[in-house]
Amino acid sequence: MLRSTVTKLSVRPFSSTAMKLRTEKDAFGDIEVANDKYWGAQTQRSLQNFKIGGAREKMPEPVIHAFGILKKAAAIVNTELGALDPKLSSAIQEAATEVADGKLLDHFPLVVFQTGSGTQSNMNANEVISNRAIELLGGELGSKKPVHPNDHVNMSQSSNDTFPTVMHIAAVTEISNHLIPELTALRDSLQAKSEEFKDIIKIGRTHLQDATPLTLGQEFSGYVQQLTNGIARVERSLENLRFLAQGGTAVGTGLNTKIGFPEKVAEQVSVLTGLQFFTAPNKFEALAAHDAIVEASGALNTVATSLFKIANDIRYLGSGPRCGYGELSLPENEPGSSIMPGKVNPTQNEALTMVCTQVFGNNAAITFAGASGQFELNVFKPVMISNLLSSVRLIADASYSFRVHCVEGIKANETRISQLLNESLMLVTALNPKIGYDAASKTAKNAHKKGLTLKQSALELGVLTEEEFDEWVRPEKMLGPK
Amino acid sequence: MLRSTVTKLSVRPFSSTAMKLRTEKDAFGDIEVANDKYWGAQTQRSLQNFKIGGAREKMPEPVIHAFGILKKAAAIVNTELGALDPKLSSAIQEAATEVADGKLLDHFPLVVFQTGSGTQSNMNANEVISNRAIELLGGELGSKKPVHPNDHVNMSQSSNDTFPTVMHIAAVTEISNHLIPELTALRDSLQAKSEEFKDIIKIGRTHLQDATPLTLGQEFSGYVQQLTNGIARVERSLENLRFLAQGGTAVGTGLNTKIGFPEKVAEQVSVLTGLQFFTAPNKFEALAAHDAIVEASGALNTVATSLFKIANDIRYLGSGPRCGYGELSLPENEPGSSIMPGKVNPTQNEALTMVCTQVFGNNAAITFAGASGQFELNVFKPVMISNLLSSVRLIADASYSFRVHCVEGIKANETRISQLLNESLMLVTALNPKIGYDAASKTAKNAHKKGLTLKQSALELGVLTEEEFDEWVRPEKMLGPK
Amino acid sequence: MLRSTVTKLSVRPFSSTAMKLRTEKDAFGDIEVANDKYWGAQTQRSLQNFKIGGAREKMPEPVIHAFGILKKAAAIVNTELGALDPKLSSAIQEAATEVADGKLLDHFPLVVFQTGSGTQSNMNANEVISNRAIELLGGELGSKKPVHPNDHVNMSQSSNDTFPTVMHIAAVTEISNHLIPELTALRDSLQAKSEEFKDIIKIGRTHLQDATPLTLGQEFSGYVQQLTNGIARVERSLENLRFLAQGGTAVGTGLNTKIGFPEKVAEQVSVLTGLQFFTAPNKFEALAAHDAIVEASGALNTVATSLFKIANDIRYLGSGPRCGYGELSLPENEPGSSIMPGKVNPTQNEALTMVCTQVFGNNAAITFAGASGQFELNVFKPVMISNLLSSVRLIADASYSFRVHCVEGIKANETRISQLLNESLMLVTALNPKIGYDAASKTAKNAHKKGLTLKQSALELGVLTEEEFDEWVRPEKMLGPK
Amino acid sequence: MLRSTVTKLSVRPFSSTAMKLRTEKDAFGDIEVANDKYWGAQTQRSLQNFKIGGAREKMPEPVIHAFGILKKAAAIVNTELGALDPKLSSAIQEAATEVADGKLLDHFPLVVFQTGSGTQSNMNANEVISNRAIELLGGELGSKKPVHPNDHVNMSQSSNDTFPTVMHIAAVTEISNHLIPELTALRDSLQAKSEEFKDIIKIGRTHLQDATPLTLGQEFSGYVQQLTNGIARVERSLENLRFLAQGGTAVGTGLNTKIGFPEKVAEQVSVLTGLQFFTAPNKFEALAAHDAIVEASGALNTVATSLFKIANDIRYLGSGPRCGYGELSLPENEPGSSIMPGKVNPTQNEALTMVCTQVFGNNAAITFAGASGQFELNVFKPVMISNLLSSVRLIADASYSFRVHCVEGIKANETRISQLLNESLMLVTALNPKIGYDAASKTAKNAHKKGLTLKQSALELGVLTEEEFDEWVRPEKMLGPK
Repeated sequence: MLRSTVTKLSVRPFSSTAMKLRTEKDAFGDIEVANDKYWGAQTQRSLQNFKIGGAREKMPEPVIHAFGILKKAAAIVNTELGALDPKLSSAIQEAATEVADGKLLDHFPLVVFQTGSGTQSNMNANEVISNRAIELLGGELGSKKPVHPNDHVNMSQSSNDTFPTVMHIAAVTEISNHLIPELTALRDSLQAKSEEFKDIIKIGRTHLQDATPLTLGQEFSGYVQQLTNGIARVERSLENLRFLAQGGTAVGTGLNTKIGFPEKVAEQVSVLTGLQFFTAPNKFEALAAHDAIVEASGALNTVATSLFKIANDIRYLGSGPRCGYGELSLPENEPGSSIMPGKVNPTQNEALTMVCTQVFGNNAAITFAGASGQFELNVFKPVMISNLLSSVRLIADASYSFRVHCVEGIKANETRISQLLNESLMLVTALNPKIGYDAASKTAKNAHKKGLTLKQSALELGVLTEEEFDEWVRPEKMLGPK
Repeated sequence: MLRSTVTKLSVRPFSSTAMKLRTEKDAFGDIEVANDKYWGAQTQRSLQNFKIGGAREKMPEPVIHAFGILKKAAAIVNTELGALDPKLSSAIQEAATEVADGKLLDHFPLVVFQTGSGTQSNMNANEVISNRAIELLGGELGSKKPVHPNDHVNMSQSSNDTFPTVMHIAAVTEISNHLIPELTALRDSLQAKSEEFKDIIKIGRTHLQDATPLTLGQEFSGYVQQLTNGIARVERSLENLRFLAQGGTAVGTGLNTKIGFPEKVAEQVSVLTGLQFFTAPNKFEALAAHDAIVEASGALNTVATSLFKIANDIRYLGSGPRCGYGELSLPENEPGSSIMPGKVNPTQNEALTMVCTQVFGNNAAITFAGASGQFELNVFKPVMISNLLSSVRLIADASYSFRVHCVEGIKANETRISQLLNESLMLVTALNPKIGYDAASKTAKNAHKKGLTLKQSALELGVLTEEEFDEWVRPEKMLGPK
Repeated sequence: MLRSTVTKLSVRPFSSTAMKLRTEKDAFGDIEVANDKYWGAQTQRSLQNFKIGGAREKMPEPVIHAFGILKKAAAIVNTELGALDPKLSSAIQEAATEVADGKLLDHFPLVVFQTGSGTQSNMNANEVISNRAIELLGGELGSKKPVHPNDHVNMSQSSNDTFPTVMHIAAVTEISNHLIPELTALRDSLQAKSEEFKDIIKIGRTHLQDATPLTLGQEFSGYVQQLTNGIARVERSLENLRFLAQGGTAVGTGLNTKIGFPEKVAEQVSVLTGLQFFTAPNKFEALAAHDAIVEASGALNTVATSLFKIANDIRYLGSGPRCGYGELSLPENEPGSSIMPGKVNPTQNEALTMVCTQVFGNNAAITFAGASGQFELNVFKPVMISNLLSSVRLIADASYSFRVHCVEGIKANETRISQLLNESLMLVTALNPKIGYDAASKTAKNAHKKGLTLKQSALELGVLTEEEFDEWVRPEKMLGPK
Repeated sequence: MLRSTVTKLSVRPFSSTAMKLRTEKDAFGDIEVANDKYWGAQTQRSLQNFKIGGAREKMPEPVIHAFGILKKAAAIVNTELGALDPKLSSAIQEAATEVADGKLLDHFPLVVFQTGSGTQSNMNANEVISNRAIELLGGELGSKKPVHPNDHVNMSQSSNDTFPTVMHIAAVTEISNHLIPELTALRDSLQAKSEEFKDIIKIGRTHLQDATPLTLGQEFSGYVQQLTNGIARVERSLENLRFLAQGGTAVGTGLNTKIGFPEKVAEQVSVLTGLQFFTAPNKFEALAAHDAIVEASGALNTVATSLFKIANDIRYLGSGPRCGYGELSLPENEPGSSIMPGKVNPTQNEALTMVCTQVFGNNAAITFAGASGQFELNVFKPVMISNLLSSVRLIADASYSFRVHCVEGIKANETRISQLLNESLMLVTALNPKIGYDAASKTAKNAHKKGLTLKQSALELGVLTEEEFDEWVRPEKMLGPK
């Protein structure tokens, strides 16, 4: 009988029996590790103890990159403070750079659903950098000599302050380098459309019902404003993310670290990333709560409500080709129907709105996790940063995809737009001051009853001439205040 | 300067200085209570210590009614078990009946945001029933004689088991007596429409794009199925709500209650409500967790997704009158526009979809609260039942309103439906087997390009005769499998 | 059989048969209204068509107050612009002031779950103010003379721009006047406790496990930082709420309003409230989306995660009296147990954490509603503002209650704190540099195995003298970096 | 400057320039595809048009397996119905089996955030199976001969009915084969602990405060009940998932499929999976709504609230080793502290509670997506099934991990439990009937004030003898009703 038996395999990519092994050790004793991997005993234990979620749930790559950045910064500062031998520091920095550059991703196998402090990922970084540095210095993997994962790579640090630090580095980096640029490009693209469409007058719709006219450009200007505000919201949420927990060590007091270390690390991280970071004003808060992550997620949540509205409007305006609103033509990126021309499914809008629902869900997860800190530590760190980075990347990627494959190619169906505008009865309001409320109302009712245009109805009723109608019913005069 | 100063007043309706006072007492000592109120010292303290949310956040009425039912049931059983003097029992039962009938609502002033065990509302019930029973027996309010709030009204009970018991009584009662009847009536109403519309063939829409035809009746049959399933979902969620915590007393062991008390109370509650209740199989679970509430909220959440979809479809199908889909006419219940005929805002759909968003939010609150129990007690009881009852009532009321003021009056615009169907190009698929894929495709493309109907295009291209077109393009043959 | 029959009555407070009636009319025709109420035909129709949710779901009072403010501002500006007769304007202003002051709340009976544009509440305001102004001018209720609800009270306005305007006025007013002051007071109160506790050294806890020490003051300083940040978050979210939609009229174009009206109304609202308001830069966005509400809810959501953590920590630290952490004594506000001294239930913490779960739920509702705007109008306005104001008030009220009835009375149990600190084995880390890692580890293991204190174990093993222990193991030296 | 440049690479595993290419075509024209992949033109277009989310967001594997099952079933039925050549059918079945067995996962590169109907994943399945079947029959990849992806593999099907069908197959399979077994194993493991601990009497805790005693076994029995109920909840939610949409084709009418096809496919799927499936009673509902997914997510959400409570209780009960509750010892799976014995971080509980927050978030995403169907199609299908399968897998995996690495190794610290019980003052309630309320109360107050045990206090006050105390204060008599 045909049955799925593969699902769980992905969590055990490391169980191949053919691989060569070496022995690593920690306080718990010896453990075998694949010899082609830099990780050590604590990583290996986590792999075996947390078979949860498989490949989809691996610690997000930006967190790994951020560990590389942080460990490099710490090595520089520790040497500066005279605590770390320059030769070891140099090897650590080189190894950490490789981690930051994403060259050692295969050596970071752990999943999000591990210890809630992220300790195991911190040890993963310490172990990989230590072994790689040992290798660079010609030593033996697993020997912890001359570069010890705890004593040297983790010097002056604790998992409890490094993990929240990399959370913030990863978030700020991804938001600054990917999300804001993509949101800005999408905004600019909508702005260009708003200008392109500035003279196209169309029927407005409130309660989904025909209402007074506006231009298609005005309609798009609302979307532009939403994104302009959204970008500002995301930027405001960066403020608190720029504060780093580094220096709090185990409980926030900074025991076992050096005065000056926190500030210098923040400076180094700024130099290495080209982005602004500062040391957190209160380390107890920085370890025990992740309100800055919740805040940033709230900003993303708001951006997602904007994008949902924009994508939804555009797909309805593009509905048809014959039996929908039909005011816009969306670009055709793939076959909609093999036989029917004009059936263009709004697939980019669908992907984007699905992304929005995911962001709403991520926000709920982050909220719950963010509220659940206990005493000196919040132990929901990995799930919080995983969801935040998911929202950041999904919005960034979908903004790119929606812009390039949809917005830039949108065309206005001017004939259809104009036809609907003229068929509409809402323009009757323009006749009030000319022929009086009663005659105007009668004209509209007659048109509605008989399925006539306003003009046809007015002429039939003889309340004005064709020339008068054309002069008085001018949608272009209905686009603003007097 | 004009400033709002009234907002907070509503939480202090009891602070009038003119009222006559009497002294009540509890373990904390003496406290003044308005003499025209039956409540006692513990209620009064809660009033003063929890000025949170005002009138909108009062303990929901169905919880008060349920307290009446439960206290009456307990009095009956306690007398049956020989523990409670029949004369006192009789007075307690009479007072409890008044509570159950909603006659003493003014004497239940406490808000949801009090102690998380609901103890203060339990004491409110004990105090009101005791004082009212004392009054019935000719005693003095506040004397606790001859009916003591704890010794007699709360006999064999603890707040920790009574509050979860009234949560379930209130939920089952409201769901059975209000929600399920209203959902059923709405379903039946949609079913009637499905039958009424069974011969009206219309264009289908997938991805919002024109697709193959179906009948309007078939479209509505989907809504009917959603509600049929929804009602079954709600009914399934009643299963666990029928289990009562009563008998667990303080921590679930049943210390200080009598063997047999739990089962007999459940029986009495069944008799008094005419609905099925059983004693919970495990009282530790029944006090420390409220998974049955979370489960029921999940069912309501699902029903809300159904209603959101139905209400949304119907308002889009009714959009127009000229520039929307226009396939349905919704009843006009209030002025849409003073001058424009046919502008009927889908206000009932708006109210219903707003209700759905509230239910989604309530479900999030309930989930969070439900997960947060600690050891032997979940102390988020009032907020859980408040949100559940809110969802129950909102869906019930909105189902009624939507049915009576919208669904029952929906009319199909057959002319418009038929026009759209005929204008659609999707019917070209019917020509494939007759004139070949290439000619069919050419016909559709020509129609799309020139804005013709399929028939016009086919005749223009000379690929068939008018008679052939009318014979071959028969939407009514496209409504099912062969 | 005892059955609850009262539940629904609350939605029909106006159905008393004894009341005197007058006839009001609108485009739909005549309708009877209770003669002791100022509302008119459209309010009455809404009452009858939207029996959803009852008294708990009435339009929140701050919205009513905001309508008073807005209508007064509009009357002032309309007169300034020469459009409104000063005598009528004066009567409108007087009536509107009464609305703003909350004197006419009984005349605003509508519920949240009405039309999604809030049109019916706008008409409610127009009708009440018009009738009250008519009364002030000696006219006849319902005559619409000399003050017409639409022509005069609603002059230059549309429901589509007034309702979003009052949403923002209400939100800014409540947040500025109630929420921020209460959060600030709570923050200050925690700050005072942080200072009071600055010399009390206690065991730290990470992963709920004993960790290195910190002071109780440091622990509380984390809470202070959370609230300091939270207040700043809420303040940042006010930025976009200060923008008013007024002037957009029906679809955002401003048709039928006057140039200058939007700016002048914003100015007047600022004067009347003493708070800053500006006209929105893009009215299409201001009508069709309510991202500013979603953003503000995100800030409140973040504040709620902070409060949840703080309240939760404090109740665990106060758990006991004998079998919990027992480091704090919380004030006793009501009887916990009639016989057992020291059993103080953390009821304020329970109320506050329940409030937080409600805020999380409200945020979910607001998010969903905020994403669901369509074309030129978001028709989820009432449910959005209702949930936002609920979150604002609940956090404000609960912050007050938690501060006054809990935080201010918290006492540190220094004996218990000191005992736990001394019993802890974590202090062994201080011995590492003195007696070496191996001896230190042996000392801890011996203590753990035999249930000794560190000192007892060290002395038993003879690794140091009592004097050495007392000199070397100094928690006060473990509170910061070197 | 060090910058992360790798993040986006993962979405372009197919862009290697060295790979050999072949030409595939669809209605849109020619497109190049890597020659070592079976997929065709439509898959390739989706890859290029939806670069959203990268590897983490690939369509979940159980969906791919389900496509294999469905396509095999369809081939069998089509041949049975005489529509598909047995030779082609046999090749299709063989290829589909490989897909079902997970052997061709590398050929399914698409992400969740594609078209909302899942059409592109359906075409991916059609293309891979067609090309693999062509290969098995000795034909040329990309030739569509002799096995055409649409005409043969997709025969009698539409994306609109296949994708919801595989959603249900995947959900039922994963829930039945993984989730329910793991939940059951966890429940059984807790049951075993409940029995193991049945004679250990401990202090109860309500409001986190010391309360009357219960056994540790009773406490665990509450967890068992929660999971027993949870398993039943999940099983109930399977009911509606067993209904398959197959046969609805494009809009639910079943146009272009054969009578009998739907029922026979459901039968075949049942045979192939060994699980029960039925054809959906209403295909309009089955395409346009996914309420069954929302319902199932609601059940998982409820299970997650249970697991959160259980994991949270256990980690608090295991807190310490010296300064927490310390009633349980959790197994030590990795180093907690290198020097401090007994510091065992509850890492499994942390992973499990993080999983729960993810499930809460997934439920929010599913709810939003489930409510957003439009007319004949819900176009949020991929994001719905992705989140549901995430919840299913995470709960299943974490239940396994929590059971094996935590629950099974939990030990009761009987000394500590007994010490706390004896130190507690709550046992004083047992003295009420013996020495009277006043003397009992005095005993408790004296003990509280002086830090004595109850016995010490009673003896000091001389209210009873040691023998009397030992006889009367018997926690084992306080564990149930009389």
